[in-house]
Amino acid sequence: MGKLDDIVSLCKRRGFIFQGSEVYGGMAGTWDYGPLGVELKRRIMQEWWQYFVEDRDDMYGVDAAILMNPRTWVASGHTATFADPLVECKECKSRFRADKIADGITESVTTEEFLDLHVKCPVCGKENWGPIRKFNMMFTTHVGAVLPEDTRDNPELAEKGIAYLRPETAQGIFTNYKNVVDTIYPDMPFGIAQQGKAFRNEISPRDFILRDRECSQMEIEYFVAPETWEENFEKMRLAQHDFLENVIGLSSDKIHELDVPKEDRAHYSKRTIDFMYDYPNGEEELMGLAYRTDFDLSNIQRESGKSMEYRDKKTNEVYVPHVIEPSIGVERLFLAVMAEAYAEDEVGDSKRVVLRLPENLAPYRFCVSPLLKNKPELVEKAREVYAALRKKYGNVTWDDSGNIGKRYRKQDEIGTPKCVVVDFDTLEDDTVTVRDRDSAEQVRVAIAEL
Amino acid sequence: MGKLDDIVSLCKRRGFIFQGSEVYGGMAGTWDYGPLGVELKRRIMQEWWQYFVEDRDDMYGVDAAILMNPRTWVASGHTATFADPLVECKECKSRFRADKIADGITESVTTEEFLDLHVKCPVCGKENWGPIRKFNMMFTTHVGAVLPEDTRDNPELAEKGIAYLRPETAQGIFTNYKNVVDTIYPDMPFGIAQQGKAFRNEISPRDFILRDRECSQMEIEYFVAPETWEENFEKMRLAQHDFLENVIGLSSDKIHELDVPKEDRAHYSKRTIDFMYDYPNGEEELMGLAYRTDFDLSNIQRESGKSMEYRDKKTNEVYVPHVIEPSIGVERLFLAVMAEAYAEDEVGDSKRVVLRLPENLAPYRFCVSPLLKNKPELVEKAREVYAALRKKYGNVTWDDSGNIGKRYRKQDEIGTPKCVVVDFDTLEDDTVTVRDRDSAEQVRVAIAEL
Repeated sequence: MGKLDDIVSLCKRRGFIFQGSEVYGGMAGTWDYGPLGVELKRRIMQEWWQYFVEDRDDMYGVDAAILMNPRTWVASGHTATFADPLVECKECKSRFRADKIADGITESVTTEEFLDLHVKCPVCGKENWGPIRKFNMMFTTHVGAVLPEDTRDNPELAEKGIAYLRPETAQGIFTNYKNVVDTIYPDMPFGIAQQGKAFRNEISPRDFILRDRECSQMEIEYFVAPETWEENFEKMRLAQHDFLENVIGLSSDKIHELDVPKEDRAHYSKRTIDFMYDYPNGEEELMGLAYRTDFDLSNIQRESGKSMEYRDKKTNEVYVPHVIEPSIGVERLFLAVMAEAYAEDEVGDSKRVVLRLPENLAPYRFCVSPLLKNKPELVEKAREVYAALRKKYGNVTWDDSGNIGKRYRKQDEIGTPKCVVVDFDTLEDDTVTVRDRDSAEQVRVAIAEL
Repeated sequence: MGKLDDIVSLCKRRGFIFQGSEVYGGMAGTWDYGPLGVELKRRIMQEWWQYFVEDRDDMYGVDAAILMNPRTWVASGHTATFADPLVECKECKSRFRADKIADGITESVTTEEFLDLHVKCPVCGKENWGPIRKFNMMFTTHVGAVLPEDTRDNPELAEKGIAYLRPETAQGIFTNYKNVVDTIYPDMPFGIAQQGKAFRNEISPRDFILRDRECSQMEIEYFVAPETWEENFEKMRLAQHDFLENVIGLSSDKIHELDVPKEDRAHYSKRTIDFMYDYPNGEEELMGLAYRTDFDLSNIQRESGKSMEYRDKKTNEVYVPHVIEPSIGVERLFLAVMAEAYAEDEVGDSKRVVLRLPENLAPYRFCVSPLLKNKPELVEKAREVYAALRKKYGNVTWDDSGNIGKRYRKQDEIGTPKCVVVDFDTLEDDTVTVRDRDSAEQVRVAIAEL
């Protein structure tokens, strides 16, 4: 496992991840996926969709809009409580999240508690703080034909059109629960899954893609009969491990379950497990698994006035289902995959960086090269092999830059499992050199057997 | 082809598309994809990605953030000109897009021109209009730790943090052009492709998913040497037809090319083709193909101060590449697919609605049923067949609701090509009834041959 800086550097150097809007000096808290990053991200998201939706017959997908009716966030509690404690240094005007610049306090810290800690400003070093204020992390926008000049004498006009960029995908699932029940009539238990963007106006975005302002989430709300929550929670817990370890290839010894104690859980949750992962910069949350009771559906029922009850097909019992929620951020999983794969070792007597990505996630499965690019007969033959492999596997790349050693270094860095090289022997006997990324060993293989 | 209302009704009834935030009375201009809609949408998007990115070796993907540095929109011209003419009825206070309630005027209509037309208000019928004002369609938000109360005495604070929800994905490609060139060193010509959300604050969202406030775009910027634009434009034009007709299955006689005349083109474009499609409610734009010269890269070069030049590997010639841009909205393609597939016909002596989706796009490829659900031996055998088909094809559904006739009607409506029914003969000879969606014909097939 590499250091975070090494991974960030590789991501930029090889086209996995760039700073958002880099050409204009950036946009804090946003990141752009480059040609290799987008392939890796798509594969991670597709593996999740296949594992949790396509390969199960109790799971249904939805894709809800990012802009939702603002009552969604009143019902969910986000309008009132999705806030961080903001504090300003009166000397240099810098602003911070209070619980991130002082130890031993939580998000609910008061001004008095904070001042008692005698924290120095991380920017100017002075100690002259304003009050703690609640900063709601939802991004606000305005929907509808209202011009800024209209609202000067009529602030209600602006209030009327307020909408938020969703801070989580989960509510797009809950608001569609009734649509799914009414059109699909699923048996209990069943789940609704969604992948999509979510936005949080972080006071201080940091740690590369771990704490960004725009992220992609993969969430499931799994609806169960109330008395069955424990067995379903346990099944879902095991499914998460199976996915993370056997599909995504994370080491089980780097994943730690943190059973969140009662005082740290949301008031409605009777059990929450944070799945922690040993990132290069320390243990951090990778995903969460929460038992949310009927909190969300009951909120929607109250706010909308519509029944969220489910009638059991066999027993005719009627109840508001309870919910098990596995929730994972794509960026956190992406970084775990990169951290797991990144290695520096020696091949022969030269050092190399190698990305030991699992075959199902690697942007390219094969790289095809002619030994020499100035020999037309080699290039032509290599192009044939390339075309055939592309047809068979799809994700195959071509590389005829530099010398063969440099190409291996490059393919090692982008995680290509096998390099196929066409040389003069190939023209004689239709065999090629296949060089393995992890062992750096080379074997001779017939083209037909690739 | 059905009427638009019939398609909207089917979409809602069967779980393809719901009104956004429906449980709270909706959110104008947003739509949520249900379990079947999300599968169809994913397939459309995956087919595009495979055709234009995975199956070509001159194309690279990116996935840029929705929130971009605001200078992006200054450079692209959106801040100044991405605006619609807004007019208000002084009687009933309704607001309209002027060019949508009067014939024969364009987006650049003046107040005088509009008043001369003596349009009556579509809501109250009076004729008492305010002036035409320019309404910028970009959604505005604020990034960073600024509370509303901070901006009361200090409006610059609010100005400082302004950001926009991207109104198109294209600029996320252009801003990454240099990143891609610097990390991948592609040969010319090459393209960069992106799929993602874009947002437009439409004054009057309407026509189902055709004119919504939040949409998914699939865009390519194809970079070429300036003198080669015409041949590359032609190749790209043919590729679009091939994709729309042979991959997505649209009828070529419903697609019409509209060569946009000079006076209607953007000033920098030397050629633009609108691909029009015969939607149920008339001919509408399906996608666009534009030759954008070096307009965008030159804008970025000027605004960022960074060179966007490309050095040709063979000729050493240095130039700012020109761009061919095929741009398609997923919703427009989705609706074309639905319109193309929707039919009402008669089977025997009963009417039915049938969705003749191509096999590669249908949410489910097979539906498996036991003839009777109260015969455990049939259910058990059918479950075996179901499991085997799921393993082989993935997208297979189970249906044991109602009687067999009702199941066929339902599967016809959601576009499932084949229904497989297990009956008592199956228990004897391991054959099943396979019923074809389009012809409604039934044949007897051995399970092993499915």
